[in-house]
Amino acid sequence: MNQTRGSPAPLPIRTIDVIRRKRDGEELSRAEIEYLVRAYTIGEIPDYQVSAWLMAVILRGLSRAETSALTDAMLRSGDVLDLTEFSAKKVDKHSTGGVGDKTSLVLAPLAAAGGLVVPMISGRGLGHTGGTLDKLESIPGFNVNLSVPEFRRVLAACGCAMIGQTAEIAPADRKLYALRDVTATVESPYLICASIMSKKLAEGIDALVLDVKTGSGAFMKEEKDAVFLAELMVETGERMGKAIVALITDMDQPLGSQVGNSLEVIEAIDVLRGAGPEELRELCLELAGWMFVLGGVVDSVADGKTRAAELIQSGQALEKLRRMVKLQGGDEGVIDNPERLPRSRYTLTVNSPASGWIASINCEAVGTACVVLGGGREKKEDGIDPAVGIVLHRKAGDAIRAGETLCTVHYNSEARARRAQEMLLNSYHVADEAAPVRKKMLVHRVIRGSGGK
Amino acid sequence: MNQTRGSPAPLPIRTIDVIRRKRDGEELSRAEIEYLVRAYTIGEIPDYQVSAWLMAVILRGLSRAETSALTDAMLRSGDVLDLTEFSAKKVDKHSTGGVGDKTSLVLAPLAAAGGLVVPMISGRGLGHTGGTLDKLESIPGFNVNLSVPEFRRVLAACGCAMIGQTAEIAPADRKLYALRDVTATVESPYLICASIMSKKLAEGIDALVLDVKTGSGAFMKEEKDAVFLAELMVETGERMGKAIVALITDMDQPLGSQVGNSLEVIEAIDVLRGAGPEELRELCLELAGWMFVLGGVVDSVADGKTRAAELIQSGQALEKLRRMVKLQGGDEGVIDNPERLPRSRYTLTVNSPASGWIASINCEAVGTACVVLGGGREKKEDGIDPAVGIVLHRKAGDAIRAGETLCTVHYNSEARARRAQEMLLNSYHVADEAAPVRKKMLVHRVIRGSGGK
Repeated sequence: MNQTRGSPAPLPIRTIDVIRRKRDGEELSRAEIEYLVRAYTIGEIPDYQVSAWLMAVILRGLSRAETSALTDAMLRSGDVLDLTEFSAKKVDKHSTGGVGDKTSLVLAPLAAAGGLVVPMISGRGLGHTGGTLDKLESIPGFNVNLSVPEFRRVLAACGCAMIGQTAEIAPADRKLYALRDVTATVESPYLICASIMSKKLAEGIDALVLDVKTGSGAFMKEEKDAVFLAELMVETGERMGKAIVALITDMDQPLGSQVGNSLEVIEAIDVLRGAGPEELRELCLELAGWMFVLGGVVDSVADGKTRAAELIQSGQALEKLRRMVKLQGGDEGVIDNPERLPRSRYTLTVNSPASGWIASINCEAVGTACVVLGGGREKKEDGIDPAVGIVLHRKAGDAIRAGETLCTVHYNSEARARRAQEMLLNSYHVADEAAPVRKKMLVHRVIRGSGGK
Repeated sequence: MNQTRGSPAPLPIRTIDVIRRKRDGEELSRAEIEYLVRAYTIGEIPDYQVSAWLMAVILRGLSRAETSALTDAMLRSGDVLDLTEFSAKKVDKHSTGGVGDKTSLVLAPLAAAGGLVVPMISGRGLGHTGGTLDKLESIPGFNVNLSVPEFRRVLAACGCAMIGQTAEIAPADRKLYALRDVTATVESPYLICASIMSKKLAEGIDALVLDVKTGSGAFMKEEKDAVFLAELMVETGERMGKAIVALITDMDQPLGSQVGNSLEVIEAIDVLRGAGPEELRELCLELAGWMFVLGGVVDSVADGKTRAAELIQSGQALEKLRRMVKLQGGDEGVIDNPERLPRSRYTLTVNSPASGWIASINCEAVGTACVVLGGGREKKEDGIDPAVGIVLHRKAGDAIRAGETLCTVHYNSEARARRAQEMLLNSYHVADEAAPVRKKMLVHRVIRGSGGK
């Protein structure tokens, strides 16, 4: 070896050592994690080594420093949008997924109406949950596949834009997610955090409000798991210099009354008109309140909620939606005439076999019933029927008499409707009148990092 | 789906479920393990799924039933030799690997001389340890790559034969081992057990004596790890109907005095002549004693050792070796004239810098020094220099004076010799005379299953 001056060059990182160290529960350095993500993304490390590493992560976990290094490496595997041309704060909201969760459709125009810039990159339905892109596409003509320059143009014109992930955003996440999906390495809070946060931070945002769902319709059924993930995401966001808050919210029954793509667009428009189910409206105001706080528009969540209610009351929020729909190629006529959205040919009702109180609703089963109707995908290649879905007439805590309607099924296929009907009937648990159910708090708790106040 | 009579067909096993269940610490069924091994061996499951499963096994472990199902599936992935044509008991010995461990060269002819059939399939040097095949190949002309019919012919002619793994033996193990090697999933007692036992049981043996090494020169440095592996292998062997025993033996310093391929053949011949270092001779008698007990030749280990000593004394064991060498194409002249084996061009001595007692020898470092000299492989592609090695003149517990020789290095390359010399000097720990060292027991303990006595 030649003698050179100064300190010796660092030894090259070996993939096998990175796997072994994580297997043994050691903490990896930022350089090791960066090496792994970068080399894997460009095809220099084979899948079989990364899948062994992912399984070690599932079983050994990652430290906060490792999680943030992983998020950062995934973020920097692709383009990060530079939105510094907009003087307003760039603030987004992200939900971990649920049933009937149409808050994004309300919040993007509502926050934009309040002066924020909302560069929202969303996903499709996953499992039993709905996806914002699928809902938007039920609006005739609406294009979620904008190029980055088009996305920028819509943002400049109306303050909000809603698109799908582009090829340039976090390619490491796409490659890793595909591998996790086939190697039973999806269910790790650390990997979920890095996947979500790398994509959201690639939007070039200043602040992020996370809606972490828990309950029978959420991916995190247990509240402690939801809290763990929320804390991880908040810490990771703060380490990367973002203002961030996570709300742990209830997904023990569907959010609002309508589940299905067209049906959820209609309910979101209802909320922006000042109507819609109380709990849905309340959650939208709460989330908007936090967006306004993090975006520096108001000083308190109470003020933020008041501001959001005013923007709905004045019609400004609905106008933002109308403008965004038009700018993204959609039929703006649906705002005033929701019947222009796709509607199912048939409906049937599911009636209660007994009198009493609704003790609980198996929320995942309701989401799955919507998938069965054609409102979501059973296989990745499946198309979506935007018209189908479920309207819930009773929610947990409501009284019901035998023969009264629990919910209405909107369907286009008799066979699918029969399967969904049975699932829905089984998903309602009716208790006798002696044991009424207390309605659950919608927001279970709020999690901010040590840096926030 | 069509209606059929009787119970429904079992659902097909999905790879992802097998990975997930092991990830979650559940016990896999025999059918699941068989599916995984079979489908992987024929290329129906990709490496990236199996490596995730292997990492889950490393971190979650396997039950005894799972370990035996895995061993069985790997065994049945290839041919199992049928040696029922031989009326004598087929008994083998396997060592987990060490430094200076040439017992196989003594035991195969010794046990055959006692009336057993020894169909020994061995390996190459791995890491700092030597390999029986590499040692045998230092005998000019000796062919370790016999076909199965040739192997049978040698066994029939002299009762023992020593070859390398053929393509037909446990192909699942070869494929899995290659994957484990690059995914940091080697170090699992369950996977080590299945790998060793599947190959050994493919030899068509009735009984097996395991020599599980522990100490600074072994793969299992800690005795508890060696005991765990030994118990696992004994249980697995018994579940598969074999008579089996494991001896936990000392590898805290090299076995015998000579380390290196030619040098070890010479020392093995010495033992078969009734000479050689006392501890090496003692371990060979002990292991042979157990082979005779398991093979039904004698009733007690004491009787077995006496029988083995007689077979050495009478020259019958050495004659077996001479015959096997000739039958496998080797120069039988080496038996009487060991100088016909390859010898190094140069030697140098490593001398003690101080007076006192040898407190310990870093056994792995001695093994690595031999690799550095060219006696083992630093990379898989490397060739072997059969002539080089180390002769130890002092062992742990011996007294030494400053300037006296600790060991002699046999070398062909000056640069390699210098590296080895430094390693060897550092591997000896000389303590002052006030603290003499008690010699360690060679056999730490004997492990038999619940079925044995």
